[in-house]
Amino acid sequence: MKLVSFDVWNTLLDINVMLDALTVELSKLMGACVLDVAEAIMLTRGRIKAMRARGQDNPKKALENSQEMLAELLGINVELVKRAGARAVLNVNDGIVLPGAREALEGVKRKGLKVTVTGNVMFWPGSYTRLLLERFGLMNYIDKTFFADEVLAYKPMKEMFRKPLEAFEVKPEQAIHVGDTYAEDFEGALNAGLWAVWINPEAEKTRKIHERGFEVPKVEGILEVLEMIEAGSI
Amino acid sequence: MKLVSFDVWNTLLDINVMLDALTVELSKLMGACVLDVAEAIMLTRGRIKAMRARGQDNPKKALENSQEMLAELLGINVELVKRAGARAVLNVNDGIVLPGAREALEGVKRKGLKVTVTGNVMFWPGSYTRLLLERFGLMNYIDKTFFADEVLAYKPMKEMFRKPLEAFEVKPEQAIHVGDTYAEDFEGALNAGLWAVWINPEAEKTRKIHERGFEVPKVEGILEVLEMIEAGSI
Repeated sequence: MKLVSFDVWNTLLDINVMLDALTVELSKLMGACVLDVAEAIMLTRGRIKAMRARGQDNPKKALENSQEMLAELLGINVELVKRAGARAVLNVNDGIVLPGAREALEGVKRKGLKVTVTGNVMFWPGSYTRLLLERFGLMNYIDKTFFADEVLAYKPMKEMFRKPLEAFEVKPEQAIHVGDTYAEDFEGALNAGLWAVWINPEAEKTRKIHERGFEVPKVEGILEVLEMIEAGSI
Repeated sequence: MKLVSFDVWNTLLDINVMLDALTVELSKLMGACVLDVAEAIMLTRGRIKAMRARGQDNPKKALENSQEMLAELLGINVELVKRAGARAVLNVNDGIVLPGAREALEGVKRKGLKVTVTGNVMFWPGSYTRLLLERFGLMNYIDKTFFADEVLAYKPMKEMFRKPLEAFEVKPEQAIHVGDTYAEDFEGALNAGLWAVWINPEAEKTRKIHERGFEVPKVEGILEVLEMIEAGSI
């Protein structure tokens, strides 16, 4: 194994902390009820996730589409969605870093492997997620970032997983991707030929569930998986 | 007049404050001498400005090209340029807001005109500039933002000036653009059919220098120009 690719949201950072901040800021900018905004965000998020799992979102417009869908549902200027994203990024605190995320990154780095993040984007650009990873010190363990709005592809598309491989001249079987979304992260990585780890909070322990796939209850499970692969015990 | 479009860097925000922060952060991340980094940034900036004035930069890759040119000149991974941009955005303080910028925006808004920013990007994305405008309260006066990496065009290209006109359904002669770079802002806006105001710090006073063009010593000069146009005294 030469490369470990991490999903960001609900793998390293807590999406609910960010979505709550986005909801509050958007409500303030609109002068609207928090509950209505929260509902619109949840609804839009569900629609987009479903579109992407089927590969039906335009990869060149994935960020803009998500911002425009939310603005349209709320009947507002899309600029307010962009502004709320900026404000949310400025206002969240380090509670956004998930327990074990730093340890997982540090552990992988200590093994001498290359580390990337490979993340989809929705509502705010990858550059803001990079800013959060920088602000809370996680970028110190990350060699390179791949965000859907910069790569112009999204998970589970194969192109999205191939970019990090190309950047480090690594073969698919020398790389493993970790993430929480089954279709985007687990199936996507396996389809692109990588090894895959699915973070399933309901899993009781680290377990092999596919020829090149594992489920783990928490992100730190990646360290155990790497040891299993190294030991050739699988 | 219905719409006033503002350039950002050296019109509303001080580019030197941001470039200094970028230089310091990049030096730290690289472990290199500040002076060498400063020189590379200045050199790359000059090259890109010249390319764009001739329309020779790829508008779909303008941000990426600038980041890669700088990384290449310094012999580093482009990820470090992106990280330095994120750190710089986090570290600058409100000294980055140019004197008179808030007053100019406020004055235009008080006249009931629509306000946009229309900005080129280099080294860091437009989303970071939006974040700074939000953080220092300037977004409260701005109706919509147009950044080159989101519009996929740059000043002085006509497409870049036409986007704000389309967004507000305004004719070129109903809009005026203010900025400090002669080729990008002044000539660009005039070529696209807008009125134009060139911020020339060496100008002694507000002065008409073209059928639809003015020079002003400071950004607040836009208010005087608007009054002159309204009074029909030109």
